[in-house]
Amino acid sequence: MTGPLSDLGRASLTSAASSDDAAPLPDARLLSFNQATAERASLPAVIETCARHGVPGIAVWRHKLADTGVGTAARLIRDAGLSVSSLCRGGMFPAATAAERAARIEDNRRAIDDAATLGAEILVLVCGAAPNRDISGARAMVADGIAAIVPYARERGVRLGIEPLHPAFAAERSCVTTMREARMLCEPFAPADVGVVVDVYHVWWDPERAAEIAMLGNRIAGYHVNDWLVPAKNVLTNRGMMGDGVIELRRIRGEVERAGYRGSIEVEIFNESIWDMPLDELVCLTRTRFVERV
Amino acid sequence: MTGPLSDLGRASLTSAASSDDAAPLPDARLLSFNQATAERASLPAVIETCARHGVPGIAVWRHKLADTGVGTAARLIRDAGLSVSSLCRGGMFPAATAAERAARIEDNRRAIDDAATLGAEILVLVCGAAPNRDISGARAMVADGIAAIVPYARERGVRLGIEPLHPAFAAERSCVTTMREARMLCEPFAPADVGVVVDVYHVWWDPERAAEIAMLGNRIAGYHVNDWLVPAKNVLTNRGMMGDGVIELRRIRGEVERAGYRGSIEVEIFNESIWDMPLDELVCLTRTRFVERV
Repeated sequence: MTGPLSDLGRASLTSAASSDDAAPLPDARLLSFNQATAERASLPAVIETCARHGVPGIAVWRHKLADTGVGTAARLIRDAGLSVSSLCRGGMFPAATAAERAARIEDNRRAIDDAATLGAEILVLVCGAAPNRDISGARAMVADGIAAIVPYARERGVRLGIEPLHPAFAAERSCVTTMREARMLCEPFAPADVGVVVDVYHVWWDPERAAEIAMLGNRIAGYHVNDWLVPAKNVLTNRGMMGDGVIELRRIRGEVERAGYRGSIEVEIFNESIWDMPLDELVCLTRTRFVERV
Repeated sequence: MTGPLSDLGRASLTSAASSDDAAPLPDARLLSFNQATAERASLPAVIETCARHGVPGIAVWRHKLADTGVGTAARLIRDAGLSVSSLCRGGMFPAATAAERAARIEDNRRAIDDAATLGAEILVLVCGAAPNRDISGARAMVADGIAAIVPYARERGVRLGIEPLHPAFAAERSCVTTMREARMLCEPFAPADVGVVVDVYHVWWDPERAAEIAMLGNRIAGYHVNDWLVPAKNVLTNRGMMGDGVIELRRIRGEVERAGYRGSIEVEIFNESIWDMPLDELVCLTRTRFVERV
């Protein structure tokens, strides 16, 4: 209550357990390591390290996939005995011209092809931001874009997962910011074709969070964990390892489980310090925190 | 659709006019200069500069008020012919212990006294963050805190304005993040006693924005303008001068006006470059942009 930059209410990081919290996970069986967590490592290195540490799943990013080649990547993953929880990312539908929007849809079709080749459970859609100041216009372009790719994805057995991003990314990455809005975008389609990816970093603050997760039910196409660090600096790389921030992880997992979700849980952390860790240590820490804190 | 840090969808800052947009403001009659915009200047300097540039209103911060003294400040403001749109800020209700919560409520009473002395239209409430990982528990503390101060404020003729903050501040400044939630918090009280402050920076992204502003109606207790800059860096100081970012300012003003709001419009910008400007230039630029871009 002093200066504009004071933060009297800052979280003191003590935990508040509740009977709504999920029970601790018995093991790492549901863990999927999203390779964005090891941004500086190659896909083959991530595959090898995950397999060695008993991490059963990975999530693949397209820019890393391009370095390795989709055929080689699919073979390496299969040979290592890993499953692929998701391919990141499609989406980015809004653009200033019809030609550019068509090019984005075509690029999404290539992503769907890759997801099918990898046997990924879903293709994650980060929907994109407005090319101008018209955020509601951009939302309409997202709805159009999704409608344009659903038949192609269905034919190839690839489920689409719309990931609402934290409102801090509304200007640059996704005009779709809440689970409610993502749920509305799903409604024209079957749950097997289009669902919603729930990432705690993006949704932990939402006053409708518990109600929306319950309403999503079998629309939940993925669950991502990490943490929200305080004080927040750069909002993109402010994610932390589970347990290092303020997100009530067991409360939210309880909500997701009560909604019926039984799928893999991806660890996805964008953070310079995490990226600087040796890959071996990082995967080991991820696995440990997954069991202890998720 | 390349790396995790790419931003293909970044706004290109062209404008998309619509018939829903408000007409340009004819003059600066509704302008109130929030002194957080001139964080490095004293209150007497802000008062003198606003008066000289024909800015009719100011919003006062308590840490600056403490430097000047509330009696002196009230006299300076009155002598300069300025009105006070708001005093910033009360709130910050959640705390780990009952004693600390009681102290916060007592501090809010002092803020109400100051608002009454200044003749401020409202006391802005920034509600505070959870002292632990329990955001819904913090929300209950906020509701309790507001209920505790409403009678005191009503007796002194001070209206309370709940300001939902952008979700990026949920961990450090306000567990109240959406207009919908702020509206629910108001409902036990008369609109003359408790309303909602709509700040474009905090609400521009909200898919429920237009509907919520319409539902607020005479609950709108203040309207704040600034802009959301891209690329976003530090989310606290990412605000820009109106016209420099991606917020559709005339669209939102149209929504606020259709809801019936006719009060002052505060310019509140937290930004290091803005704070580095000479005060005279800053107030002149603010007045110009207010008429041209708000």
